[in-house]
Amino acid sequence: MKKVRVAIVGANGYTGGEMVRLLAGHPSVELAALTSRQFAGKNITDVFPALRGIIDMPLIELDTSAVARTCDVAFLAVPHTQAMPIAADLVKQGIRVVDYSADFRLKDPEVYEKWYKAPHTEPALIKKSVYGLPELHREEVRRAQLVALPGCYPTGAILALAPAVKYGIIDFNEIVINSMSGVSGAGQTPSSQTHFPEIADNLRAYAVTSHRHTPEIDQELSSVAGKEVHALFTPHLVPANRGILSTVTASMTSETSAANLADLYRTYYKDAPFVRICEPGVYPELRFVRGSNYCDIGLAYDRRTRKLISISALDNICKGAAGQAVQCMNIIFDLPEQSGLRFGGLTP
Amino acid sequence: MKKVRVAIVGANGYTGGEMVRLLAGHPSVELAALTSRQFAGKNITDVFPALRGIIDMPLIELDTSAVARTCDVAFLAVPHTQAMPIAADLVKQGIRVVDYSADFRLKDPEVYEKWYKAPHTEPALIKKSVYGLPELHREEVRRAQLVALPGCYPTGAILALAPAVKYGIIDFNEIVINSMSGVSGAGQTPSSQTHFPEIADNLRAYAVTSHRHTPEIDQELSSVAGKEVHALFTPHLVPANRGILSTVTASMTSETSAANLADLYRTYYKDAPFVRICEPGVYPELRFVRGSNYCDIGLAYDRRTRKLISISALDNICKGAAGQAVQCMNIIFDLPEQSGLRFGGLTP
Amino acid sequence: MKKVRVAIVGANGYTGGEMVRLLAGHPSVELAALTSRQFAGKNITDVFPALRGIIDMPLIELDTSAVARTCDVAFLAVPHTQAMPIAADLVKQGIRVVDYSADFRLKDPEVYEKWYKAPHTEPALIKKSVYGLPELHREEVRRAQLVALPGCYPTGAILALAPAVKYGIIDFNEIVINSMSGVSGAGQTPSSQTHFPEIADNLRAYAVTSHRHTPEIDQELSSVAGKEVHALFTPHLVPANRGILSTVTASMTSETSAANLADLYRTYYKDAPFVRICEPGVYPELRFVRGSNYCDIGLAYDRRTRKLISISALDNICKGAAGQAVQCMNIIFDLPEQSGLRFGGLTP
Amino acid sequence: MKKVRVAIVGANGYTGGEMVRLLAGHPSVELAALTSRQFAGKNITDVFPALRGIIDMPLIELDTSAVARTCDVAFLAVPHTQAMPIAADLVKQGIRVVDYSADFRLKDPEVYEKWYKAPHTEPALIKKSVYGLPELHREEVRRAQLVALPGCYPTGAILALAPAVKYGIIDFNEIVINSMSGVSGAGQTPSSQTHFPEIADNLRAYAVTSHRHTPEIDQELSSVAGKEVHALFTPHLVPANRGILSTVTASMTSETSAANLADLYRTYYKDAPFVRICEPGVYPELRFVRGSNYCDIGLAYDRRTRKLISISALDNICKGAAGQAVQCMNIIFDLPEQSGLRFGGLTP
Repeated sequence: MKKVRVAIVGANGYTGGEMVRLLAGHPSVELAALTSRQFAGKNITDVFPALRGIIDMPLIELDTSAVARTCDVAFLAVPHTQAMPIAADLVKQGIRVVDYSADFRLKDPEVYEKWYKAPHTEPALIKKSVYGLPELHREEVRRAQLVALPGCYPTGAILALAPAVKYGIIDFNEIVINSMSGVSGAGQTPSSQTHFPEIADNLRAYAVTSHRHTPEIDQELSSVAGKEVHALFTPHLVPANRGILSTVTASMTSETSAANLADLYRTYYKDAPFVRICEPGVYPELRFVRGSNYCDIGLAYDRRTRKLISISALDNICKGAAGQAVQCMNIIFDLPEQSGLRFGGLTP
Repeated sequence: MKKVRVAIVGANGYTGGEMVRLLAGHPSVELAALTSRQFAGKNITDVFPALRGIIDMPLIELDTSAVARTCDVAFLAVPHTQAMPIAADLVKQGIRVVDYSADFRLKDPEVYEKWYKAPHTEPALIKKSVYGLPELHREEVRRAQLVALPGCYPTGAILALAPAVKYGIIDFNEIVINSMSGVSGAGQTPSSQTHFPEIADNLRAYAVTSHRHTPEIDQELSSVAGKEVHALFTPHLVPANRGILSTVTASMTSETSAANLADLYRTYYKDAPFVRICEPGVYPELRFVRGSNYCDIGLAYDRRTRKLISISALDNICKGAAGQAVQCMNIIFDLPEQSGLRFGGLTP
Repeated sequence: MKKVRVAIVGANGYTGGEMVRLLAGHPSVELAALTSRQFAGKNITDVFPALRGIIDMPLIELDTSAVARTCDVAFLAVPHTQAMPIAADLVKQGIRVVDYSADFRLKDPEVYEKWYKAPHTEPALIKKSVYGLPELHREEVRRAQLVALPGCYPTGAILALAPAVKYGIIDFNEIVINSMSGVSGAGQTPSSQTHFPEIADNLRAYAVTSHRHTPEIDQELSSVAGKEVHALFTPHLVPANRGILSTVTASMTSETSAANLADLYRTYYKDAPFVRICEPGVYPELRFVRGSNYCDIGLAYDRRTRKLISISALDNICKGAAGQAVQCMNIIFDLPEQSGLRFGGLTP
Repeated sequence: MKKVRVAIVGANGYTGGEMVRLLAGHPSVELAALTSRQFAGKNITDVFPALRGIIDMPLIELDTSAVARTCDVAFLAVPHTQAMPIAADLVKQGIRVVDYSADFRLKDPEVYEKWYKAPHTEPALIKKSVYGLPELHREEVRRAQLVALPGCYPTGAILALAPAVKYGIIDFNEIVINSMSGVSGAGQTPSSQTHFPEIADNLRAYAVTSHRHTPEIDQELSSVAGKEVHALFTPHLVPANRGILSTVTASMTSETSAANLADLYRTYYKDAPFVRICEPGVYPELRFVRGSNYCDIGLAYDRRTRKLISISALDNICKGAAGQAVQCMNIIFDLPEQSGLRFGGLTP
């Protein structure tokens, strides 16, 4: 079978490196181009010594014409605002584009401009893009020319809430999302926030009331609900490398039980191979999804306060970014959805 | 000035060790007896090598008559149910007792029996006991013969909520407490939950809807509110040694601002030397309270969802246990409230 | 092609779980039996939730006759002393056995009895066993009926030293091995040594002058040298999950350079796909081998003191145990040595 | 009693912050000036929120005349090369100077220039300076106008070796020092080496054969030996915040025992209140010295290889920097050596 020819634009970051790790083992993929402005001329193994012996490939400058000519799909692992022109260029040349950045996630360019403080230069392209959460938009992803991959936090928060919102069992005004992320979510660039002695053996909330993933969560929950939903989202940084745990609570409109909730969620996700619903009384942990593409969800009902508790865990670099991208690619090219992703988390 | 003579019953656990650390540097205290069933005959420095050169004192079997005869106050650092008879015995003999366990925290013995699955054998003594959170009960602590120290989680959760509840600015039905605790909170006994490879680089919720600190939080918030309050409390274990961060959210009854909230909290805590209210836009971190008796609180108002966010941080072994005990002792014996506790957190 | 049918005896420990993780993705293997005394009746995914969706298989009681009848090879992941009778039983019934325990590593049963304080009940079988370090004994492994897998420390220490010993460039009396291991090396059973608050943000040497891997290192280095070698080995526990870094130093018999040393080592390991020699000036890190079967080695020469510095890194659960077992299995069954092991470390 | 008036030059770094933490609790000290180029105008509590409630003092620009006029002693917590002119200026104006930098540690300016790649502009002042390791140079420190504080690694390495070198029980050509440091030792400036996801759950050697603390160790050991000593020194970075563990090995000139070694070391350090020799079979851990000024040393003799193992642990920011500075200050001003430093490590 002809392999899917892949370009990774910006292969030197954590997401790019994870992409190479995943695709190097994917049976139906040929890595055709790895680009990096900063490290062009070096080998990918200079940047990721873990890959020595597995792959041997130079990092090159991006040439969109060459990419369009030689590849079937390009993954854009570049910062927001930088993805817009590259995506537009590649889509115009007819290849599929899967974008990690926030540039095409928000359907309303004004919302983008308000939260990202930058003009949106490709509003027309937004309409052609699909929000790449396969569990909600599998069929649209299949036909999409441009996939806007969800943020890592929204992936976990939306998956934890979608069934409850869909079936209308919660009060949409009383949704509280508390997420705790490992530090790799902050990316590869050192800062005093991510300096080891400032976060090891420590814990902090950040971007309280102002995190940019907020409108993305609202947009998708509103779309599922069929009416406007505003959730309170508070992210925290915890001393772990990978993973996001989201503890989501909401007031319920009627009594229920953990078992009922689990059934409801299993029904909703019956065709989603990467969502695992825990048995009642069992809750997700980062280590069970570390390095894997699974999102685990555990559910409880608190009789005292009549509230739903839905806890999700995923690996922010894998299901929250590179793994989700591979999952979308599998769908686009009619490969089995789990192809190249059939492995469990690394525990311990 | 005559020093306060102190006994620590159960000096070999984390709380007992912290107590020795604190009292060894307290200018008005004489350590008179350190008891330990498990390590009687050994020196305290065999159990806590960190204390070598600071103190040199044997661990002995508990003899309540000797303690009552030679000490002014006894700190009980023994598991719940074990504290009941010891406290009763010592109170009867006329010395002050400060109890770390849960045995006298809950005013209603039936609530105790329901959550702790054990009979309460000293219900009469509950009435004489005071809930040892000085920020709420300073004057009662001063006169108390028996102080029931709050749990570590309740200390942070209650301090984060008391002003909002007191001034009635939040909806008492929509209070959500998410707490994240370092692993020392689980005590000194190894278990698979606290085995390093099972929690390092990991994160989990636990005791979802069923943590024993829940009724304690409700009791104190209800007392502040003057009517029944039930809060949803979800604890998490994070890969850190010391500290609890509680992110508390609640629906507000009217619009406000972070600055207003900070003013309100500062007013409420104006006589509380160990509560530090952060400037608007600044939030607490574990490292700023590590090893200290402070509880830091940061406040925000989310206009989108009309919700209060109140985040507190404290050291579970210090302000959440041993430090709070010293603070209570200072109050009881008319010492300056900060005596022996005038130091900041260890950062990094 | 007919698949190799595999039994894992003691599948519930860290090594057993890693084995399942690796073999679930191995193209030429069929998992035929997973045994566990403690968890018989449960599913492997109850013990390792990370494997949900990947594998679905019950844990059963060990029945050696059934295993011998239905499997081509059995991996023994049971504690030392327990492996002896099981290995003897299975070897007698004619299937290949790969043993993780220390029971057959030491060629001299008296040395075993001295260091392990237990009688050796199968001395005859020792002679038939092969020390399963493929980089030193590939051809013997191929023909072995019983493979004694090396300890995790010896794997890293021996690989860091074998070329220098082989080519006689160091003084055999001045070999110093300092190894630092992640906590998973201590196994899955909680103890106060591995209780999170006792080792997080901490570091300690242990088993100083007395670690049981010492005679194993001596045995293999002596075998390479062709004369008796005694190395000083000091293990340390560090707050990481997986991985061992060994910093090995030795006085050199003549001047050299890092580049010469790298050449020498590359020559020695030219047929070893899992040993990666670093460029001069580059040194191994745990994260580059996390979850992989590689052993990375970096080399330096200190002109001031005329000493060799050889630093190796490996994943104690993978190359130090389960991965090495798969590597041996591949060799035994004439599969490509890298089959099922062709993936890089998980970074970050 | 008149208090010692102190200036801290460069109070915004980890060492400066620790200094403020220690001196805020010192009974005989008055903090007179805190300077910071970067944060002048801010309060010290803006940089170290942990100190809120303990101290309230502005950071100001350095004015050496004002410092000389109003202070008895200045601590210089500025990078190497920057300390030279400030020290010269302040010494000329007659106040005592305690310098954390490397500028005056090496007695031979050529050695300084070779290892630090910078000209030494104050060679005359080197002669007046004293190497501030009180355990070796207490009397010289007492009279010194300029104290050059030892590096953090040398403090632990030298203390672990001084008695063995002094009494001539080891072969000076076979000294191997392996040190493992927490990340705070790298200072406060973020870098990719200290970015959380690059060092958490990881471990690496660095500056192999080339660390700048090497000549400092050689200088002091040679001084103790009375002849030239060259030790092999290899530092490692470990995922901990504070602390250095040094595992030092050396070939012994004759047989001995752990008990003999402990006696020898206790004799050598009989007047050193901050060196704690462990009982035979017991070894130091970072957590026992975390936040304290102690250096713990554990000793073993390996009969198989005739080698000494001496393991030391200290807190790099306290005994390795700020605590040692306070200790020197106490000696200079005839205060009790332990004044302001009489507390144990923070465990857990």
